[in-house]
Amino acid sequence: MSSFPLPQLTRASAPLTREVSAVNEFGETTTVSIPAERALTVYVDKRELVTLMTLGANPELLVLGFLRNQRLVRSVQEIESITVDWEVGAAAVKTREGIANVEERTSKRVVTTGCGQGSVFGDLMDEVDSIVLPEARLTQAQLYGIVNAIRLQESTYKSAGSVHGCALFRSEEMLLFVEDVGRHNAIDTIAGWMWLQDSEVMGGADKVFYTTGRLTSEMVIKSAQMGVPIVVSRSGITQMGHQVAQAVGLCAIGRATNKRFVCYSSPQRLHLQPELAGPKVRPATEPG
Amino acid sequence: MSSFPLPQLTRASAPLTREVSAVNEFGETTTVSIPAERALTVYVDKRELVTLMTLGANPELLVLGFLRNQRLVRSVQEIESITVDWEVGAAAVKTREGIANVEERTSKRVVTTGCGQGSVFGDLMDEVDSIVLPEARLTQAQLYGIVNAIRLQESTYKSAGSVHGCALFRSEEMLLFVEDVGRHNAIDTIAGWMWLQDSEVMGGADKVFYTTGRLTSEMVIKSAQMGVPIVVSRSGITQMGHQVAQAVGLCAIGRATNKRFVCYSSPQRLHLQPELAGPKVRPATEPG
Repeated sequence: MSSFPLPQLTRASAPLTREVSAVNEFGETTTVSIPAERALTVYVDKRELVTLMTLGANPELLVLGFLRNQRLVRSVQEIESITVDWEVGAAAVKTREGIANVEERTSKRVVTTGCGQGSVFGDLMDEVDSIVLPEARLTQAQLYGIVNAIRLQESTYKSAGSVHGCALFRSEEMLLFVEDVGRHNAIDTIAGWMWLQDSEVMGGADKVFYTTGRLTSEMVIKSAQMGVPIVVSRSGITQMGHQVAQAVGLCAIGRATNKRFVCYSSPQRLHLQPELAGPKVRPATEPG
Repeated sequence: MSSFPLPQLTRASAPLTREVSAVNEFGETTTVSIPAERALTVYVDKRELVTLMTLGANPELLVLGFLRNQRLVRSVQEIESITVDWEVGAAAVKTREGIANVEERTSKRVVTTGCGQGSVFGDLMDEVDSIVLPEARLTQAQLYGIVNAIRLQESTYKSAGSVHGCALFRSEEMLLFVEDVGRHNAIDTIAGWMWLQDSEVMGGADKVFYTTGRLTSEMVIKSAQMGVPIVVSRSGITQMGHQVAQAVGLCAIGRATNKRFVCYSSPQRLHLQPELAGPKVRPATEPG
């Protein structure tokens, strides 16, 4: 790191679930938890940039990662401070020297796979060719360790549903687990956190990214952007996700539950240990 | 309907799945299906508006419903034709008299619950107060009929995973089932289809909207926009979805699988028949 200090961040907090009244199939009025969802309007140097809808667990890291993944900021040292105030639903970002051409760089809209942050997509696809992912391998035993760690993780999902979870692993060690109502928020939050760590520790080479959501092109691109060459999901992959994963040599593993998985790309990064897979019994019908 | 004819639509088609090679947990190389995902750039009167990432099953209806749900077009009769050409990934929309202020009306971006189409959100929230949903009720038996019809539906999801499904029901009769890689595309496609039907048949009063995705604010708003007062999902609800449903008096039913469900709002629209719910056995842990 250079002589610049890390950005100053508030630690705004707010309840992650709320109780609402509901009626169940027995006609009983019950109380159920639903995830919180709040608007966070991001101002960069007093200029309104975007409004993010978020669970609100880590708003400062979310904003930092959003700026990074949108490529509006190239270095964490460009940020002087991020101040979040839930009273007014605002995140004030102060940069050291401003962001050049912010108007132009946020203007192109692409509505992507059910999951916005559209402006990022067109630009990033142009840059995919320049991404070189580090050598890295994962063993099947480590993959099972990751799936098991996620299974055991306490979460807002378990108590309230309706959120996506993402996690960053070093081999099978979970470094960070993030949930949000939008899965892009979750991965952006992880990107923000990684940016604050020492870059020697936090290089992507030995990292694995886990998401409960589908492996869409955006998820694959964002993982590649963070230098993380292996992505695991309990869900499947889309065609664009598959194409991007192949283009950048990222190992995309989907349908990872219990002992099962499908490796869609770069299988050479996965050290197979089929003897750990257990007996060969599969349900009759299943999506690929 | 007035004297204007309905818009002329092409019927562009393209494969909905593709086969890719993958490696499973037994170390076997297998072929699996993944959903197709293609870019469709929408031009309105030769002006580029947006690029949608879509499965591609019903691109003309998707574009029609997108224009409607973004409130860029107020009447189907404003559209003269929609011509989709998958060779170039383009949808050419020809209007009869142009769209006023299209620049201004598509400029405001809000990144919402993991699911973009951001510009719609701010504007629509302003209009929520003006929505008056028709009186309508659904019986618990009809709700079970809906859940069962979805269970039996052949789908890209069953063969390839990674898509969201939406359906429009008249009571428990399925009128239309649509899948897409983005769930907003699926609901927009249904909106486009409804717009082409005779408005006397296609009023929302006796309709029910089903989605495999979460009940986010956008899903609730879009359903309300279509005049459909009851929404059913196998997934849960977010806080904003809950707030909007309560504000417009929409009956939001989530966690609908087998005989189970949770009605989050306007339970008076649901005619409860608890005797149909079966024995009262629930798993120990479950999200609300």
